[in-house]
Amino acid sequence: MYAIVMAGGAGTRLWPLSRRRTPKQLLALTGDTSLLQQTVARLGALLKPHDIYVITGQAHVRATQEQLPQLPADNVLGEPLARSTAVAAGLATVLARRESDDVALVLPADHFVADEAAFADALREAARVAERGYLVTLGVVPTHPATGYGYIKHGEALHSASPSALVERFVEKPDAAHAETFLAEGGYSWNAGVFVWRNYAFRQALERFQPQLSEALGRIEALHRTPGWMSDVRAILEPVPAITIDVGVAEPAAAEGRMAVVPLDAGWSDIGSWSALLEALSGARGADLVASGPHLDRGSRRVLVHGGDRLVVTVGLEDVIIVDTPDALLVCHRDRAEEIKPVLDEIARTAGDRYL
Amino acid sequence: MYAIVMAGGAGTRLWPLSRRRTPKQLLALTGDTSLLQQTVARLGALLKPHDIYVITGQAHVRATQEQLPQLPADNVLGEPLARSTAVAAGLATVLARRESDDVALVLPADHFVADEAAFADALREAARVAERGYLVTLGVVPTHPATGYGYIKHGEALHSASPSALVERFVEKPDAAHAETFLAEGGYSWNAGVFVWRNYAFRQALERFQPQLSEALGRIEALHRTPGWMSDVRAILEPVPAITIDVGVAEPAAAEGRMAVVPLDAGWSDIGSWSALLEALSGARGADLVASGPHLDRGSRRVLVHGGDRLVVTVGLEDVIIVDTPDALLVCHRDRAEEIKPVLDEIARTAGDRYL
Repeated sequence: MYAIVMAGGAGTRLWPLSRRRTPKQLLALTGDTSLLQQTVARLGALLKPHDIYVITGQAHVRATQEQLPQLPADNVLGEPLARSTAVAAGLATVLARRESDDVALVLPADHFVADEAAFADALREAARVAERGYLVTLGVVPTHPATGYGYIKHGEALHSASPSALVERFVEKPDAAHAETFLAEGGYSWNAGVFVWRNYAFRQALERFQPQLSEALGRIEALHRTPGWMSDVRAILEPVPAITIDVGVAEPAAAEGRMAVVPLDAGWSDIGSWSALLEALSGARGADLVASGPHLDRGSRRVLVHGGDRLVVTVGLEDVIIVDTPDALLVCHRDRAEEIKPVLDEIARTAGDRYL
Repeated sequence: MYAIVMAGGAGTRLWPLSRRRTPKQLLALTGDTSLLQQTVARLGALLKPHDIYVITGQAHVRATQEQLPQLPADNVLGEPLARSTAVAAGLATVLARRESDDVALVLPADHFVADEAAFADALREAARVAERGYLVTLGVVPTHPATGYGYIKHGEALHSASPSALVERFVEKPDAAHAETFLAEGGYSWNAGVFVWRNYAFRQALERFQPQLSEALGRIEALHRTPGWMSDVRAILEPVPAITIDVGVAEPAAAEGRMAVVPLDAGWSDIGSWSALLEALSGARGADLVASGPHLDRGSRRVLVHGGDRLVVTVGLEDVIIVDTPDALLVCHRDRAEEIKPVLDEIARTAGDRYL
């Protein structure tokens, strides 16, 4: 068993803390260590360091290695260009050169998990299911009718003793009414973007559903670490379209009954926005005011303060997110954290790269 | 005619911008120049620079002179110790050495006035009334049932052609119910802490109502600018109790029918808190989002951003005050700006002088 940690994200929705040079996974958002470091530490319950690989943009290889001194430097894989998750996972699979019946845990570098033991248990169960040849995804037990996640509709149970099931289908991010219905009906979970499979099963799925990518990976495999090979890798991947695991692999595999889902109930969050971070940390800490850095409050509720060196004083606030960085300050209503994206567009128009 | 600008305030309620070393009047809160500079500029409609005196704590004499290069350096008077407004006005009167029938305009350095012409007109009218021997105060025409100001109950009109009147009595800051009653009844104004009187009338009132202060001022007058005199001034004032013009002079003078009030309708604010600043600037600019410094907003309402060099981004906020300084950030609900005082007490307890 080994892990591929997918560290290709930009996390612009966590501006002004996340920037081009310091994407989300490299940030200490939930404690003293970065999300990437926590993800790798979490895998320590299941794997030795040399069985943990990280794939990231070439610009972030150095910073990633520095954050993970316990990993062999070669286990940090540099992607010559960003082509979304299916390509990244495929490339990592080839570069890791693992046995074809090894089980790969493929997971994002930038998620939050409150209950580490439950997460490890779910991965172990997923590995058992993957041994049987299934492509497996973790399905987060929903706590509310979220509209920010894709849903997984569970099908037939795999065996009576476990809650693992076939995936009946994947559902795009629903509107609020549909999300309510899913929760009322039951048998749905959130798509966490965590996948577990045998190398062989994944390569076979790529061959079947993504032949162009599969062929490209075969060519990369053939020239592995020949002189100047990384520019060849780049040239080989250039024409391959960006494709996600979800759309490019998981959905067609589900349609053919090859996709299984293992429930995950571990206080998971993708921290897709500042409000998601507030929610995750509030839940984990049992307090609705979450602060880092020097901070003093009088009577605020449902407030996130992500501070730095400066003293932050909050008085009587409700539903507010405050992110304090050396050159930019964000103060945002909790329900409008998604609007950071248009804000960044406007900053790019008016101030160029300065704050990006 | 001459002016005494009272610049002794600390303005802790405008923390974190106001600090011990930079009290409120030295801050540029309402534009590019400080409140003190605006106050002196406002007097320029009525007076020449050499007729404008500023009295401030000795620690702030240098900074005050630097902000007011148009004034003779000697017109900035240093108070050796803080003993509130009656003592400061008395000391300034003595130090300025003006003729006894000169009319003094005594006014705080840290107030805001939107309509400068109306303010000058009110001072001119007040000077005319003061010529007749009255102690005169400006009474701000109330725009809402404020509970943060003392009220003036107007008595008999001084003459039919003007709205100036005798002061019937001064009323302490009322509760909301009383404030409502005052506005419904009419004949009340807010006490702006601006006084106009002939030197002679003021000295006579001190002699009658504050004999200890009057006697101290006589002794100071006698030793004016003898060698080492400032330490003598300090020794003379040391035993004099702190006393405000309002309580120590204006109230007893009103009881004897010597106090007059001239209405002021000029968009005045004492800027006693960040919410008062928001209110004053919103009114003056006709916009409920008031920002200084680099700032970008999406859909916020009733928000004050007092920024510095950093980019401040606000999204979807309502009724929030943001004050950004190099070492401390305040984010405060608009209705709770008065709670800065207990916050400062807590900072003093936990961090000592660092942020004060």
